[in-house]
Amino acid sequence: MTHTLILLRHGESEWNAKNLFTGWVDVALSETGRGEAVRGGRQLVEAGLLPDVVHTSLLRRAITTANIALDEADRHWIPVRRSWRLNERHYGALQGKDKKQTLETYGEEQFMLWRRSFDVPPPPLEDDDEFSQAGDPRYADLGEDMPRSECLKDVIARMLPYWESAIVPDLQAGRVVLVAAHGNSLRAVVKHLDHISDHDIAGLNIPTGMPLVYELDDDLSPTVPGGRYLDPDAAAEAAAAVANQGR
Amino acid sequence: MTHTLILLRHGESEWNAKNLFTGWVDVALSETGRGEAVRGGRQLVEAGLLPDVVHTSLLRRAITTANIALDEADRHWIPVRRSWRLNERHYGALQGKDKKQTLETYGEEQFMLWRRSFDVPPPPLEDDDEFSQAGDPRYADLGEDMPRSECLKDVIARMLPYWESAIVPDLQAGRVVLVAAHGNSLRAVVKHLDHISDHDIAGLNIPTGMPLVYELDDDLSPTVPGGRYLDPDAAAEAAAAVANQGR
Repeated sequence: MTHTLILLRHGESEWNAKNLFTGWVDVALSETGRGEAVRGGRQLVEAGLLPDVVHTSLLRRAITTANIALDEADRHWIPVRRSWRLNERHYGALQGKDKKQTLETYGEEQFMLWRRSFDVPPPPLEDDDEFSQAGDPRYADLGEDMPRSECLKDVIARMLPYWESAIVPDLQAGRVVLVAAHGNSLRAVVKHLDHISDHDIAGLNIPTGMPLVYELDDDLSPTVPGGRYLDPDAAAEAAAAVANQGR
Repeated sequence: MTHTLILLRHGESEWNAKNLFTGWVDVALSETGRGEAVRGGRQLVEAGLLPDVVHTSLLRRAITTANIALDEADRHWIPVRRSWRLNERHYGALQGKDKKQTLETYGEEQFMLWRRSFDVPPPPLEDDDEFSQAGDPRYADLGEDMPRSECLKDVIARMLPYWESAIVPDLQAGRVVLVAAHGNSLRAVVKHLDHISDHDIAGLNIPTGMPLVYELDDDLSPTVPGGRYLDPDAAAEAAAAVANQGR
């Protein structure tokens, strides 16, 4: 028996469109992003891949993407589970900053270190910053777990307990699982599933709004490494565009 | 300590607008209905009533109403629970029929009996009818519980186990609970809370898209019988309009 996992990065947000670092700032989808979510839902229907349960982050752009895609696929009624552990990487003091301007201010090396290094987080975001989530009720229970900045290594460390405790049980129960989340929380999942090295993960980009499907064996190892996009050509093109952001 | 329960009937659906009996047919909100959901969410914010958890039926018009209202109230991230036990009354063979035409065909007495009698269900819907839910995957686990027609008494009987097992525990845990559901499943809740007689419940109408708030004491009895609408004048006007449907 194989287990089916579908990863879906949220569609374009209002801040993706403006080229700002977003992280935990809770921005809405753009109209383009809503259209991407509809298309993602249609691709699921065409492929006959109907989720039995959905997991989302606590951020609006992932939640709305899931709502729209599932409505399109006539699966709006399935059980919903949410966790901050699926949130986007916390971008620290970069949250709210323009990507191009950050590149110009700090230079290519520092910029790429913050964007793609495995274990160097940006400077922490102050709790009194306008883009801080320190007083946000949805994170009130986190206490010391509440991040002020994260590198990908941090994202993996806080994502994995949710993978083990919430997503794996759904897969083992034979449910088709949809995870609607973010560029970096999904890279964390893919790194774990495909055993990608700390070095190589820097080169992996996940496009927005395109279902990435993994069939997993009983050990939850991918039967096809890297999974498959339902529209591979469009996904390759979009992933290349993600890699070039800020240029 | 009081417990806060907010009941929200879905906004106008595409079939409310066309004056058709809907029941378990899974129609979408109309544009008007989406606007009502936004307004409902805004009323929650203005009243400082922020849900900690939401319960919905398995029908799109209630789910979308909850999604829109919660997004408007910045509570899109709260836990979600769903159950068929919060579905609208199954309207049996009337599903998909025009209300005015049904009134003309069967006459006032039979029409009002089906619409408002406590314990007389309409004729059952055949499983091969285009408006049947017999093959719908979301109800696959129901087996013999799957209704083919319901009166209000039936709705109460299948709603109460969910009230006791899922909603009451959330209230007792001190959570502000939002129930996004339907005219008849919410009438069932109100009848239970306010101890309304089988006779008097016929006169109770719940308007669409208007949060109805109950503060409950430790025995889960309303501190104010009937609860309160956040916009009482608009609610009274809308309830009168519901009572006159089909005229």
